[in-house]
Amino acid sequence: MNIFLDAMGGDHAPHEIVKGAVDAVKEYDVSLTLVGQRSVIEEALSQYDYPKDKIKILHAQTVIENTEEPAMAIRHKSDSSLVVALEEMKTLENAVLISAGSTGALLAGGLLKLGRIKGIKRPALAATIPKSDGGVFLLIDTGANADCRPEYLEQFAQLGKIYSENVLGKTNPGIGLINIGAEAKKGNSLVKAAYELLAAGDFNFLGNVEARDIPETKADVLVCDGFTGNIVLKLTEGIAAYMINGIKTSIMSSTKGKVGGMLIKDNLKQFKKQFDYAEYGGAPFLGVKGGIIKAHGSSDAFAIKNAIRQSIKFVENDVLKKITENANKMEA
Amino acid sequence: MNIFLDAMGGDHAPHEIVKGAVDAVKEYDVSLTLVGQRSVIEEALSQYDYPKDKIKILHAQTVIENTEEPAMAIRHKSDSSLVVALEEMKTLENAVLISAGSTGALLAGGLLKLGRIKGIKRPALAATIPKSDGGVFLLIDTGANADCRPEYLEQFAQLGKIYSENVLGKTNPGIGLINIGAEAKKGNSLVKAAYELLAAGDFNFLGNVEARDIPETKADVLVCDGFTGNIVLKLTEGIAAYMINGIKTSIMSSTKGKVGGMLIKDNLKQFKKQFDYAEYGGAPFLGVKGGIIKAHGSSDAFAIKNAIRQSIKFVENDVLKKITENANKMEA
Repeated sequence: MNIFLDAMGGDHAPHEIVKGAVDAVKEYDVSLTLVGQRSVIEEALSQYDYPKDKIKILHAQTVIENTEEPAMAIRHKSDSSLVVALEEMKTLENAVLISAGSTGALLAGGLLKLGRIKGIKRPALAATIPKSDGGVFLLIDTGANADCRPEYLEQFAQLGKIYSENVLGKTNPGIGLINIGAEAKKGNSLVKAAYELLAAGDFNFLGNVEARDIPETKADVLVCDGFTGNIVLKLTEGIAAYMINGIKTSIMSSTKGKVGGMLIKDNLKQFKKQFDYAEYGGAPFLGVKGGIIKAHGSSDAFAIKNAIRQSIKFVENDVLKKITENANKMEA
Repeated sequence: MNIFLDAMGGDHAPHEIVKGAVDAVKEYDVSLTLVGQRSVIEEALSQYDYPKDKIKILHAQTVIENTEEPAMAIRHKSDSSLVVALEEMKTLENAVLISAGSTGALLAGGLLKLGRIKGIKRPALAATIPKSDGGVFLLIDTGANADCRPEYLEQFAQLGKIYSENVLGKTNPGIGLINIGAEAKKGNSLVKAAYELLAAGDFNFLGNVEARDIPETKADVLVCDGFTGNIVLKLTEGIAAYMINGIKTSIMSSTKGKVGGMLIKDNLKQFKKQFDYAEYGGAPFLGVKGGIIKAHGSSDAFAIKNAIRQSIKFVENDVLKKITENANKMEA
């Protein structure tokens, strides 16, 4: 198992990334490679007590910033943590790279350096999202492919199914298609055609899922184009933050409310935890020749530790091999 | 001014529709026509004391149900409240129809019976949505056009601008384009091309608005294709309901929480009011030769009264004439 961690990417790099790595090697008995400036990483590591043989450092002089044009940066910044890690991954089996840095650069890097798995039309970025019953669903694609064809959505369903079975532990996962109506004939031309493909395919297809029902969906995998998926993901975050802040402001506007607010503090905290991306690890980029996990930009050590746990499952359950076999079968 | 009210459409028809009409004629000194089964409407009206000359009844024997195929129903149910109202509107100037019944039938009816204004490529359904600063923005299109071309989005911006100025009282309304990134080059091919048109057009164009920022947007009008708009509208409703229910459940799970919950009840109620569609009237269907307002299916008398107030503004501020002049100018 070869797990690489971009030590330089993310709002709280390198310290929270390094701390997450230390916590993970202690908790999961796994070996890791931190990629980035050796001196910086060594200094961060020196604060912790941990089994030294479990964490290696792969030196990289620079880092790709969020503001850089992704493909250009991947092509030209050969000494960046991302490119150094990806070049190393190419020589290895069962490698996974976790980064909390630029999403665009990570996806571009995965495509350009590792390449698509044969038979995969468009790799897709998936996200694990909590639902009201305490479970999660996988949303795919969340932004890697803004323009899609129906057959891409069919493949997203296949990628999502494999990931859901092997990393999220679902059996015969239910597949839903995000749409603007429940009936089969609803939607734009893309989803109408995708509906036909999903209904005819080898899926536990549950049909269309309207946006209103997403938080309560019975589906394990929700499929959509990357434009729609990104809207769903970001709007969910935006509305949740808006509601939490709005409720807080409203409570704090009266004395009675303030007292009540103190009494329900623990309940609100517990509820908010449900939305904590950190609980669920990062977003897997599926369909490239290697494991790529995009951790949230604001990841702390806990989120990084969970992304490492997710990477272990990804490798242990042979997700890459299963995607490859499935893609070959589709192409045949 | 000719305001028609579909007395038979909606979850609480006819009683709440009739009550909303009675409240409106008392409050706004306006005349209205209720459309539907005369005997049913008369019975509902008999409960109230109001200026009798202000409410007329236009008899229609049947109603189009939500389950009926919209275009088919409009073509064949000539004795339905919708079709009877639309046929009457065709003979009049400055007519508006409000219905809380089938959205599909109302849009199909508007298109088939009233027709598009010359120069309008695709009429669009808009919705007024509250934002965190206490104001509102207009979302257009929310579902009338699942498949769009860039020039439709440009027209939605024009329709939204006119409505926003004349009904929502905004001066030089800011136009935002819903997208998956803030930069000009982001998005799918549709929004990239629409961005160019909006930037070059006669708009106070504020650029792209990411979904995360929608609840806090500075824009007065948010433009998108009908598929995306429907997702945004319905997901906002879904997440808000999910959060309110989740917080309630969490509060009720402990004794301390229950006590606190009682103390913050008023604050929560006040906050929830912000999301109340009923405050903002209905969704205008813009670009057809007549005023069409879709009231929420679950509209009560208060929501209907507000939709009537909205209709008065629509007529008083000559929205139809302004759309027509603008559309002619565009075509010229």
